Amino acid sequence: MRIKDINKQEAIIEATVLLVNEIGFVSCSVSKIAKKANVSPATLYIYYKNKEDLLVSTYIEVKKKMSKALLNGFDDSMPFRDILEKFWKNGFRFVKNNKALFQYAEQFASSPFSELVNPAELEKHFEPMIKVLQKGIEQKVIKDVPFDILAAFIFYPMMNLANSKTCKSLELNDNTIEVAFKLAWDAIKL
Amino acid sequence: MRIKDINKQEAIIEATVLLVNEIGFVSCSVSKIAKKANVSPATLYIYYKNKEDLLVSTYIEVKKKMSKALLNGFDDSMPFRDILEKFWKNGFRFVKNNKALFQYAEQFASSPFSELVNPAELEKHFEPMIKVLQKGIEQKVIKDVPFDILAAFIFYPMMNLANSKTCKSLELNDNTIEVAFKLAWDAIKL
Repeated sequence: MRIKDINKQEAIIEATVLLVNEIGFVSCSVSKIAKKANVSPATLYIYYKNKEDLLVSTYIEVKKKMSKALLNGFDDSMPFRDILEKFWKNGFRFVKNNKALFQYAEQFASSPFSELVNPAELEKHFEPMIKVLQKGIEQKVIKDVPFDILAAFIFYPMMNLANSKTCKSLELNDNTIEVAFKLAWDAIKL
Repeated sequence: MRIKDINKQEAIIEATVLLVNEIGFVSCSVSKIAKKANVSPATLYIYYKNKEDLLVSTYIEVKKKMSKALLNGFDDSMPFRDILEKFWKNGFRFVKNNKALFQYAEQFASSPFSELVNPAELEKHFEPMIKVLQKGIEQKVIKDVPFDILAAFIFYPMMNLANSKTCKSLELNDNTIEVAFKLAWDAIKL
């Protein structure tokens, strides 16, 4: 077995994101992606079984990057509201600065390929966030509602507002981000 | 000029939605859509100038259907919270029962074609909702924040929760929809 090369793998992921955003899931192929990544198709097959595997792995990689960004500066001992505000601002910055990754993730999640993702594989990257929310529920700081509902009010408005494609007219500055976080907090707090 | 046929136009829009969801924006063409709609390409060109025009018009048509669904049973004299709760539940039902239309709209909004939409053309269909929110701000019932932020907390969590593709684990029944609306309301109320 050949030794895997992190740089090559990064190049393949980047090429997948760019090409899918440009021509869509259906038109892209392993050979087109290999060409864009400047590797041979044979090299690509060292890392990925087939097109589906490549698309799914790229999605998980994007989500991993996102969870890593969200957790930047995470400190379990901070007050609960401050932890969430940090997630919120980190998430904003990530979506704003990584438009291509975000667009890929959005398109993937609403495509039939999303059926191929193992939810547990995805969830493990968001475990620290889930644990924080669980603690908030136990300590009666936030509402005791299903995790999906909490997430729909914390992460989705943020992603929507940070994404200039769906939210064109709003000028986002530190003040608007702060104002929007206040709404998220009011939604979930007890 | 030939007389336009509403049934044909509906068939073309339906075919556009289904084909784009199936093979993506890039791979679909006027001739493939015409074939799926069971009309000749020449007929399609009576209604739409080109592929871009067809994709954009279909998106606006989907948004029109959505705004019509949201406004179902709308009564300006109802208490403000009840009006919003009606929008919320109508929206839920629409997304749940019109998965294909919703998927098309989501994909379109994150595609480069979204740049071709005239925001005013879109906004006019949502005017009654915007007016209700403005009234709520004036009467100091809801927070005086930009409309995009209000929308991000009312419409986006609802769309996300109602869309089984992004929200797989939650069982949605009348109770969860009610619980989720409580969070939306807490987010925006003063």
